[in-house]
Amino acid sequence: MSVTEMSAEAELDTIPVLRRQIDSLDEAIMRLVAERAKLSTRVQTARMSAGGTRVQLGRERVIMDAYRTGLGAHGPELADAVLRVCRGTR
Amino acid sequence: MSVTEMSAEAELDTIPVLRRQIDSLDEAIMRLVAERAKLSTRVQTARMSAGGTRVQLGRERVIMDAYRTGLGAHGPELADAVLRVCRGTR
Repeated sequence: MSVTEMSAEAELDTIPVLRRQIDSLDEAIMRLVAERAKLSTRVQTARMSAGGTRVQLGRERVIMDAYRTGLGAHGPELADAVLRVCRGTR
Repeated sequence: MSVTEMSAEAELDTIPVLRRQIDSLDEAIMRLVAERAKLSTRVQTARMSAGGTRVQLGRERVIMDAYRTGLGAHGPELADAVLRVCRGTR
């Protein structure tokens, strides 16, 4: 086995470890989004009890921009999905 | 001002506090996704250096199912957006 084959094999061996770390990050991401959904529901309830709308597009645009700044081109897609999860729990 | 109007007003006063908490959660979510993107890039690199593909659909389905279990109907949309952010950084 050549040196390159050995290093490719060693690289492959790292994948299961990296995947377990990714799985832990996914669990943490889901916990944060679930927590966010609870807070978002409270905001929606407070706004509607005062006669306001459930969704505020101006506020959602601010959130989209924050995700674009934080994560680049795909950030707004993630923000949109997060917002849908948070709206979805109504 | 009636009792209901007072309580609606008190509810409205909670919105700025709740929004700041939501903003902190969004920052934490973005940090975790950025960290996940780094790990995902390492997996893609390891797999390709051993002659494999950059994306593994079987693995992505496992992740989608985990997000559906964790967050319900909109979970897979969030997983899809997370995966796109992680693929996007290549």
